[in-house]
Amino acid sequence: MDSCVTAAIARETHELALVHASYGQRTERRELQAFTDIADFYSVQERLAVQLRHFAQIGGSALTDMRISVPEGHLGAQVNGNEIPSTYVPFRNAHFLSVAVSWGEVIGATAIFIGAVAEDSSGYPDCRLEYYRVFQQLVREGTKPETQIEIVTPVIGMRKWQIIKRGLELKAPLDRTWSCYQSEDAACGVCDSCRLRLSAFAEAGIGDPIAYRAQVER
Amino acid sequence: MDSCVTAAIARETHELALVHASYGQRTERRELQAFTDIADFYSVQERLAVQLRHFAQIGGSALTDMRISVPEGHLGAQVNGNEIPSTYVPFRNAHFLSVAVSWGEVIGATAIFIGAVAEDSSGYPDCRLEYYRVFQQLVREGTKPETQIEIVTPVIGMRKWQIIKRGLELKAPLDRTWSCYQSEDAACGVCDSCRLRLSAFAEAGIGDPIAYRAQVER
Repeated sequence: MDSCVTAAIARETHELALVHASYGQRTERRELQAFTDIADFYSVQERLAVQLRHFAQIGGSALTDMRISVPEGHLGAQVNGNEIPSTYVPFRNAHFLSVAVSWGEVIGATAIFIGAVAEDSSGYPDCRLEYYRVFQQLVREGTKPETQIEIVTPVIGMRKWQIIKRGLELKAPLDRTWSCYQSEDAACGVCDSCRLRLSAFAEAGIGDPIAYRAQVER
Repeated sequence: MDSCVTAAIARETHELALVHASYGQRTERRELQAFTDIADFYSVQERLAVQLRHFAQIGGSALTDMRISVPEGHLGAQVNGNEIPSTYVPFRNAHFLSVAVSWGEVIGATAIFIGAVAEDSSGYPDCRLEYYRVFQQLVREGTKPETQIEIVTPVIGMRKWQIIKRGLELKAPLDRTWSCYQSEDAACGVCDSCRLRLSAFAEAGIGDPIAYRAQVER
C-alpha cells in the first residue's frame, strides 16, 4: 500500500519505471501479483522484477525463515518500545535500493521513490529518514559522475491513515495492494502488517477494499 | 587476488566466514571455483555463495552483458583519465556488501573485510575509501541497535604489487585466485584485469603462479 501510494505520488512528476523484489518472503507470489496489477493499472512498460534468493539462505527473519512464526496480536514496535520485531529482514532495504540504483543507472533514472514509513510502522531500522539520507550519499559516491539519482521518500513522515487519504485523492488502486505477511488468498487480519493497515483504515474512516479472513471469522 | 589477500589479512585477527557472489559475470564458474579453493585452503566452514541473477537482467556492463565486449590492450582509467570503463558493473559493490551485512547480522559478525583497491585499479567509483566510509554509516543506521559491524578495507590504499607482496608474506594461496574478466581455462592476459595483475607481478619482481593463454601465444 505504501509502495502503491508512493508510485501514485511519483507519477505526478516523473515517468514511472517499477521495480519489484521477491526475496523468499511468505507471500512472495501474492506480492508479485499485486506488483503486476498495479503496473498494469498505470500502464507502466518499464518493469524489473528480480528474485533475491539469498534472503532464504541468510534467514534470520520470520518473513523468510519458515521456522520463525509471524507474530500475531500486537503491533510490533508500538507495543515493544524499541525492540526490533522478528519480521525485520536484516538490512533488506539496502538490497532493494541497490537493485533500483543499478537499474536506474542503466536506464538513466533521475530519482528512486521508495515507500518507507518511519514512525507509524513496524519499527525497522532501515525505514528511517536518516538511513535514506546516508543512502543518498552512497549513491553519489558509488555511481558514475554523470549519474544523478535522487532518493525520494514521500510518505516516510506520514501516519498510515494519511497515506490512505493521499492514495484516495490520487485515485491509487488500493484494492490491488497487498500487505499481509502470511496469507496469499484473503489477508489474515492478525499479523502486524494487517493490524497496522486495518487500524489505519479505521482511523481514515473508510473501509479497506481488500478481503480479510479473520474479519469473517470474528 | 585482492579478496584472497584481504582474507589472509582478516584471519590474522578474526575467525573467517566467506561470502561469494555470482552475478552473471563471464567468468562466473571459474570465480566460484577460486572461492571454493581458497575457502578449502583456509578450512573455512562458514561459507555463503549467492547468485545475484538480476545483474544479467539489468546489464549495462561488459562483464554481465554479452553484447558489450571486454576491452583489451589498455588499462582502463589509467589511460582514459576519469572515464569509467565498460567493465564497471553499476553499483555492484553495494549488492555484495548488503549480502555480507545481512548475513553478518544473522551470524553475529563484528567486521566485514572487502578487498577493494582505489588507486591502482580499473577506476570504479565504488572502490574508493569515501564510499566505504559512507557504507559504514549506512550499516550503523540500517541494522539493529545491537549489531556492531565494522567495514574494513585493508588493501584499498595499496598498489597492486604491494598486495602481492603482502599476500606472499602471509602465505596466501595466490595460485588459487582468478582475475581474468573473460576466460575460464587459462587467463586471457589482455583484458584490463589481467594486465593490471601481470604488471603488478612484474613490479613485484616475481612470476604469477597462474597460467596465461596470451603469454604462450606472444
